[in-house]
Amino acid sequence: MSIEIYWFSGSPFAWRAILAAEVKGIDYTSRLIQASDGDHQKPEFLAMSPRGKVPVLRDGDLVVTESLAILAYLDRRFPEPPLFGRTPEETGQIWRLALDFENNSLGQFMNIIQPIFFDQVEEKREQVEAAADAVTHELARLEGRLKEQPWLAGEAVSAADIAIYPFVEAVLRAAGKPIAKTVPLRVLPFEQTYPALAAWRQRVGLLPGYERAYPPHWRSAA
Amino acid sequence: MSIEIYWFSGSPFAWRAILAAEVKGIDYTSRLIQASDGDHQKPEFLAMSPRGKVPVLRDGDLVVTESLAILAYLDRRFPEPPLFGRTPEETGQIWRLALDFENNSLGQFMNIIQPIFFDQVEEKREQVEAAADAVTHELARLEGRLKEQPWLAGEAVSAADIAIYPFVEAVLRAAGKPIAKTVPLRVLPFEQTYPALAAWRQRVGLLPGYERAYPPHWRSAA
Repeated sequence: MSIEIYWFSGSPFAWRAILAAEVKGIDYTSRLIQASDGDHQKPEFLAMSPRGKVPVLRDGDLVVTESLAILAYLDRRFPEPPLFGRTPEETGQIWRLALDFENNSLGQFMNIIQPIFFDQVEEKREQVEAAADAVTHELARLEGRLKEQPWLAGEAVSAADIAIYPFVEAVLRAAGKPIAKTVPLRVLPFEQTYPALAAWRQRVGLLPGYERAYPPHWRSAA
Repeated sequence: MSIEIYWFSGSPFAWRAILAAEVKGIDYTSRLIQASDGDHQKPEFLAMSPRGKVPVLRDGDLVVTESLAILAYLDRRFPEPPLFGRTPEETGQIWRLALDFENNSLGQFMNIIQPIFFDQVEEKREQVEAAADAVTHELARLEGRLKEQPWLAGEAVSAADIAIYPFVEAVLRAAGKPIAKTVPLRVLPFEQTYPALAAWRQRVGLLPGYERAYPPHWRSAA
């Protein structure tokens, strides 16, 4: 029985798991479920993921939730190419980058993404504006790293890129929505403001299997 | 030059790093710094940890922040005893436990710990009471696991225990403060309510080097 990965289209957390599986070249079964159908609240799903969250990886009897835990599992199970480095130093730096983003920046990205995607900008304008400051600061930090090297942790793609990329992509998509014009996000024009991040985005887009990890419903809707 | 670990007495995040180093039996230099002296805002500290957070590990030219990243680094650098398991399955389960706590429960623990330690219970009473519900639920989940096995991930101590233990200890210390009697925390009496967690707590207390990781100022003050 092959590995199964349960995901929602457009969830940046789920995107991490699919992208990691693609970069590893793993033979997995994609289980795209629908939040709008309540798939994540069905008993068989809650038995795997009691909080009703995606992504979930199932590999035989093993169930792994939490997107970064799925990356750690995949890296141990399929060591090539490594996502968490080849040396202890690389491992330390990659986890530092991924967890620093997770614990300090991810919430600010979500504070922009969710109100725009779910049409709550009016009620949450103050939150979105405060988050825009924090996200601008974080994007500038990432831009600084990527001026020096092609990937966030150095010369090779790593879990740091895979952990952060879907949130950058989601914030860019949010910034392109008409309602986003009413808040000063300072994300666009992206290529001019963040040229190194824009080049990195293109590099990520050329990763093997990138197309299969791209949120399907983002293709059909603007 | 030996590994240095910078920490605050009583920070549960920092406690993780020190406890992990002790369990590994590593020869490290303890750098106990003082938040009350502003040590974490001094330029030499901010050069290592731009957000001014502990713990920080320095190993030669390498600097690692984020407590779970420090655990991942130590485990790669000093493989025995393993903190993230010996098999991919163990690695997946341990990261799932640690990150599920980090992303879903840790904030609720902090919502009890900080107002009680910093004498803000009156202003934050609603927050503390809501957090008490969430923490009760989480402690019951942990209790359920520990009824089946001595450590959170099975038969051996792991990063899951080291990640979660300092927060359990801090919430227990908070629950023992006089002001905590004015909010229904439902944590005490701990031995009767959570016998398996209480036995686990004793087990953690017998780990090698446990005493050196215990917050020094907790010994002298009630």
